[in-house]
Amino acid sequence: MSPFPSSAPRTEQWRHLRLTVEDAVATVTLARPEKLNALTFGAYADLRDLLAELSRERAVRALVLGGEGRGFCSGGDVDEIIGATLSMDTAQLLDFNRMTGQVVRALRECPFPVIAAVHGVAAGAGAVLALAADFRIADPSARFAFLFTRVGLSGGDMGAAYLLPRVVGLGHATRLLMLGEPVRASEAERIGLISEMTDEGQADTRAAELARRLADGPALAHAQTKALLTTELDMPLAAAVELDAATQALLMNGADYAEFHAAFTEKRPPKWQGR
Amino acid sequence: MSPFPSSAPRTEQWRHLRLTVEDAVATVTLARPEKLNALTFGAYADLRDLLAELSRERAVRALVLGGEGRGFCSGGDVDEIIGATLSMDTAQLLDFNRMTGQVVRALRECPFPVIAAVHGVAAGAGAVLALAADFRIADPSARFAFLFTRVGLSGGDMGAAYLLPRVVGLGHATRLLMLGEPVRASEAERIGLISEMTDEGQADTRAAELARRLADGPALAHAQTKALLTTELDMPLAAAVELDAATQALLMNGADYAEFHAAFTEKRPPKWQGR
Amino acid sequence: MSPFPSSAPRTEQWRHLRLTVEDAVATVTLARPEKLNALTFGAYADLRDLLAELSRERAVRALVLGGEGRGFCSGGDVDEIIGATLSMDTAQLLDFNRMTGQVVRALRECPFPVIAAVHGVAAGAGAVLALAADFRIADPSARFAFLFTRVGLSGGDMGAAYLLPRVVGLGHATRLLMLGEPVRASEAERIGLISEMTDEGQADTRAAELARRLADGPALAHAQTKALLTTELDMPLAAAVELDAATQALLMNGADYAEFHAAFTEKRPPKWQGR
Repeated sequence: MSPFPSSAPRTEQWRHLRLTVEDAVATVTLARPEKLNALTFGAYADLRDLLAELSRERAVRALVLGGEGRGFCSGGDVDEIIGATLSMDTAQLLDFNRMTGQVVRALRECPFPVIAAVHGVAAGAGAVLALAADFRIADPSARFAFLFTRVGLSGGDMGAAYLLPRVVGLGHATRLLMLGEPVRASEAERIGLISEMTDEGQADTRAAELARRLADGPALAHAQTKALLTTELDMPLAAAVELDAATQALLMNGADYAEFHAAFTEKRPPKWQGR
Repeated sequence: MSPFPSSAPRTEQWRHLRLTVEDAVATVTLARPEKLNALTFGAYADLRDLLAELSRERAVRALVLGGEGRGFCSGGDVDEIIGATLSMDTAQLLDFNRMTGQVVRALRECPFPVIAAVHGVAAGAGAVLALAADFRIADPSARFAFLFTRVGLSGGDMGAAYLLPRVVGLGHATRLLMLGEPVRASEAERIGLISEMTDEGQADTRAAELARRLADGPALAHAQTKALLTTELDMPLAAAVELDAATQALLMNGADYAEFHAAFTEKRPPKWQGR
Repeated sequence: MSPFPSSAPRTEQWRHLRLTVEDAVATVTLARPEKLNALTFGAYADLRDLLAELSRERAVRALVLGGEGRGFCSGGDVDEIIGATLSMDTAQLLDFNRMTGQVVRALRECPFPVIAAVHGVAAGAGAVLALAADFRIADPSARFAFLFTRVGLSGGDMGAAYLLPRVVGLGHATRLLMLGEPVRASEAERIGLISEMTDEGQADTRAAELARRLADGPALAHAQTKALLTTELDMPLAAAVELDAATQALLMNGADYAEFHAAFTEKRPPKWQGR
């Protein structure tokens, strides 16, 4: 429930993805395994609106994004998206591409960490969804492919040309976006594209554990850390330092900071409230 | 030939470098092997004007930059440049340094990927030319040295203090630019400074293969990918996502995107037109 | 002595840290070993004002920052800082956090390279002090922990959310700042967080050697290299290239550039003046 509810009702059912929320951890599963979770217009729109709803609420403190079946996500569906866009006019094409970009902005701007649990293929838009997450937990089967140029499009889809150089550096990013070749988990680990490589088949489990830990921890501190990491990519040093000062002053008035000190003094673990 | 020709004639002969253009692949060779391809005023000026001419045309879809003889490029010639600049006045010094910077901007802003084929030494301005390329294909003999401080100058020559932190991170970049020590191919690979290390003596061949592949592919998609990678380093996330949306909408109206879908449907390889 | 002295006197004694200046190398030692060099209000204030004084002078050409005893710095003192801030009002909290940010800005903006010599723990604010240095020389015992979220605060303390993604990439930075887990020297080397790993117990010695080398070298060139690396993180390519051109034109009028050429011609080592 939003702390500032408007007249807009909550969505009862998300038809193009699977959502569970358990004790402040949301789990979003791309669940079209017969198509390697290829994205449809409906799936993009659901992600856009679901993230907006969750961002208004205080109920969610961490989100796991995963895929059902053999892989994470094979990207935009060749028939339902590529085929359909071929008969769209310019305004429709812009609406579609803005929508996909809104999903990426929502992933970067939502007030809780997002953990992508990646197994098997994360291709095209699927690779960018993972890239826009805060953590990428991958099992050894994972492979990322930013294969936009393979379909005649720009590698800078959905913010990839902004995000990828900031994650792996401009050299690797150019190679990955220009050529669209697959990056296996071992290379992804070497170049800093993934946060953690798990044992085979363990990405979902580890992602859920991390989400639980984050949600049970000082969640407001996590949310602010994410906000600063996201916004300070676009700020000069002096402004970033000033924003940090204001943010810490704010959190030093918060409950969790006092709780840390009390727990430390009493030699017990802190009981985080996330505020 | 430019799609929008002006009155300015094409240059018949480039005297300070060697140029070949074959089937949309330009190969520029620094060809002063007796001096390890040390750069002269004429070589910088030729690079500046050649890149401007090629950028006006639709004839070139990929460019290879290499060096003849024992190495790639030893940087500015100690006698012809360092010696000469010692008797220049302030306005002349500024003209010279702006010219070298224009070469780097032209490499970043030209509408086709640039592949540096590096063997042996890439030092000083030679290291920055390679750094400004989109791909650095290096053989194991390659070594990069940003040795500007070794001659009493700033390590931030020709955009190096802008580019290098964005390729290898601020820590490595500080070390390389401040100390001017050589980076061997194995370290360059480890820190993300090169795109690919080849077998000994194979950098030119691999660079030519990559250029061929890029030129034969969806070249407009490659050009836009490069433009987004270059410009989104300087843009905030929201603007980058909007630029991506407009770019994809544009390319979804292009010939290559339709051709991909037709080829996929007909289970044949696409025939890219590069537009 | 400043080349432009004001009425303000030099500080005779720094009470909260140890300072030596020998032949243009300043060594600042956090010297509260019984508390793992935990920072107090006085230590932050001394660092802020010391760096401002040194930046006005031409006497210092390199600075080493180290810690006495078992580790580099355990961060803000739990009792003297965390405890005290719990009873501060909003204006006081902002003053405190602005002061710590000023230390980081001073480290980035002072006109000489800063070398952090790290052994043992560099935690919290201690990790950020090291991060803000130009070089991090670490021995194998070093471990970095950005543990701000562990006390209920934002990981973006003192510019960490600005600096860390620019050093190790956004993926690693998110993991380190959000989770606050320790990074051992071997991982720090792998992800680019340290400049050099030494043999056990040798970080102070190697840092002193590097400072000596930098101070004896073309110090104005080093200072300008640092200034460009710092400011060009916040500039677009075109502006960076223009700044580089002006800076090189300036240094080409300097004594050290002429000295390099004379020494090269006479086949002798240059005698750098640092101007």
